[in-house]
Amino acid sequence: MNHQKNSWIAVPQHSDFPLQNIPFGIIQYQNDTPHPATRIGDTVIDLFYLAEYGYFDSLDIKNLSPFSAPVLNDFIALGKQTTNAVREYLMKLFAEDNDYLKNDEKTKAMALIPVEEVELLLPLNIGDYTDFYSSIEHATNVGKMFRDPENALLPNWRHLPVGYHGRSSSIVVSGAEIHRPKGQLKPADSDQPVFGPSRRLDFELEMAFVTGKETKLGESVPVDQAEEYIFGMVVFNDLSARDIQKWEYVPLGPFLSKNFGSVISPWIVTLEALEAFRTASPKQDPEVLPYLSVSGEKNFDINLEVALQPENSEETLICRSNFKYMYWNMNQQLAHQTVNGCNIRVGDLYASGTISGSERDSFGSMLELSWGGKNPITLNDESTRIFLEDGDTVTMRAFCEKDNLRIGFGESVVKILPAV
Amino acid sequence: MNHQKNSWIAVPQHSDFPLQNIPFGIIQYQNDTPHPATRIGDTVIDLFYLAEYGYFDSLDIKNLSPFSAPVLNDFIALGKQTTNAVREYLMKLFAEDNDYLKNDEKTKAMALIPVEEVELLLPLNIGDYTDFYSSIEHATNVGKMFRDPENALLPNWRHLPVGYHGRSSSIVVSGAEIHRPKGQLKPADSDQPVFGPSRRLDFELEMAFVTGKETKLGESVPVDQAEEYIFGMVVFNDLSARDIQKWEYVPLGPFLSKNFGSVISPWIVTLEALEAFRTASPKQDPEVLPYLSVSGEKNFDINLEVALQPENSEETLICRSNFKYMYWNMNQQLAHQTVNGCNIRVGDLYASGTISGSERDSFGSMLELSWGGKNPITLNDESTRIFLEDGDTVTMRAFCEKDNLRIGFGESVVKILPAV
Repeated sequence: MNHQKNSWIAVPQHSDFPLQNIPFGIIQYQNDTPHPATRIGDTVIDLFYLAEYGYFDSLDIKNLSPFSAPVLNDFIALGKQTTNAVREYLMKLFAEDNDYLKNDEKTKAMALIPVEEVELLLPLNIGDYTDFYSSIEHATNVGKMFRDPENALLPNWRHLPVGYHGRSSSIVVSGAEIHRPKGQLKPADSDQPVFGPSRRLDFELEMAFVTGKETKLGESVPVDQAEEYIFGMVVFNDLSARDIQKWEYVPLGPFLSKNFGSVISPWIVTLEALEAFRTASPKQDPEVLPYLSVSGEKNFDINLEVALQPENSEETLICRSNFKYMYWNMNQQLAHQTVNGCNIRVGDLYASGTISGSERDSFGSMLELSWGGKNPITLNDESTRIFLEDGDTVTMRAFCEKDNLRIGFGESVVKILPAV
Repeated sequence: MNHQKNSWIAVPQHSDFPLQNIPFGIIQYQNDTPHPATRIGDTVIDLFYLAEYGYFDSLDIKNLSPFSAPVLNDFIALGKQTTNAVREYLMKLFAEDNDYLKNDEKTKAMALIPVEEVELLLPLNIGDYTDFYSSIEHATNVGKMFRDPENALLPNWRHLPVGYHGRSSSIVVSGAEIHRPKGQLKPADSDQPVFGPSRRLDFELEMAFVTGKETKLGESVPVDQAEEYIFGMVVFNDLSARDIQKWEYVPLGPFLSKNFGSVISPWIVTLEALEAFRTASPKQDPEVLPYLSVSGEKNFDINLEVALQPENSEETLICRSNFKYMYWNMNQQLAHQTVNGCNIRVGDLYASGTISGSERDSFGSMLELSWGGKNPITLNDESTRIFLEDGDTVTMRAFCEKDNLRIGFGESVVKILPAV
């Protein structure tokens, strides 16, 4: 068991945000403009004021304007060398044996804010958003229910990380309230579609990575260099309307069933903070084409949880999964995304697809947990669910834990409101 | 035959850009910063200098900063009332009977530039891009070749304007050179996919509209108010790799087959400029659901052409189609896009899908023109094509013509380079 260095900022037991995390987000405090920030324990640190008071001067960053921007794109675009230097500097500055800022009451008064006093904003201007479909358990489960139980996995699935483009305008930050979507549904007993609120509203438990380096149109990211292009990760709830999806998705894929609201956690945890939690991926069979072939530990051991809380009731933990179940890793996803010359930008989002394990309680969607509505799940308050009901709050959590170190992502929380 | 008012700027016969057009674009002239501009005949008018020299003062626009922005988003976001006032003012300012600017040599020297001396830039920061599939002839042709000739049109097609999300990062402006994409292809005689350059590289003849007004998440655009949200239109070439598409697209839709480069014409022609060219849409059968039901003439009579030019050879006109063939109109597309509460932003792009007519020479893609490669087409230089070859230049043109008035879109031009 390692002893991890403590911070002079109090960190509650089991906090997702020890000194070793240093994630990045955007905060809004009172009437101030939005600023980049990090978090230790339950204290938010406004990086604008650290920059303003000269704390980053030793890092020789030529342009400090990213520290006053309302999104993280410009900060991330400074490049890993700089953003890692900022992160490492912050780990030193807040270490228990460092008095430099600790004794600077003026700067502390401006920069340190209890997290409950700030609003956490969407941290990115998301250029493009791709949703992959990289969990073999999820793809198999969905294939059985939506298509053919005998041939659940389609012929291309083991050869390439299947993905599709999603909508970036409707990605919102944790704490959102989303109205149940309306749309065309085709009841099984009808020849014609009907119009109305979705009756099969679902979540999808996903993680997403944020790109930190751009490419030009025509360039590809080699699979063994992909991590240089990945800044960090968030928890991602890809809300889905299964009945709208079923009617619309052939032949061009999901559209209105997926673009009415996707909910990310507010703090971007860097790839560097996850280093201690690397793990192997599932063996890929058949062998993948050379442009997708990676060696070494390219997956991460990240515990995932979904809790469901009916209105005016308690929450029930309904799913425990793990990011390490992913058949296709992020490096392969990014290499595939760009192998045709598709260009990427700083601040793009690439979601994993629903992350299901092999056990029923590790399934990452209501569709799978209730097996298409056939097996209702029972909550702690004895109510049952096959899909989400109005007033339900869905909370997703993600954290790594090993040798006394816990690095977490916080939460993605969304409440379902009735259809407009 | 109407007599159209002339401009004191020379307009060549058959120009797409008479005094009555006044499209908007972004120009780069020598070392100056990019500026919003319009065009009359072969003369570009730099709107930054008109604003700078007080020409828009009478319009009482509170904030002139959109006239110095490098994209049109802020200008469009001023709203139709303002952008229409600017357009109408410009039509007066450049009318042959108006001496105001004509005699102002100082401003003219800064603001009027021959089009061949400027670079035309991508005019928008495109937030999200949707590609519809709204030509019944195209959907039927593709269905016959990709799926089942007996059931070419899928059950949902006549009930909703099928669409999917595309990639906005890879949308470029006319004049681009795009490398043939590489990717996974599955030859018919092989069990396994292979990796290599696409052998079935295609264009898709489309138009796209630009949204000019945002909505909030949860709001919908009523079909009878949709035109208030549409700023204007461009020609859109949705380059497609048919072999990559065929292997990847089931079940989540086209991905790498479509995101290696899409090419728009540089001038956004406003909906107002197209007013004289309204026309009825094809009759929809069965009747559509109420949220998609429109009355009045919601389509536009826009002639479309595709020319193919092999390297070091002459061009051949290989397709003549018309935007009026569209089964689903733009109002229906936008109402559908937002019926679930999906929010839209200023500067989003919504492409029509390939616009084919019923005759073979009106088919809007090589896939259809060569019927899946079975019927090669012969070019003027006696070479033949089933798909695009390296060195080929594809030029798409769009124009309306009626009663002596021609309003055109200019061109979308792209040259295909060999795979990297």
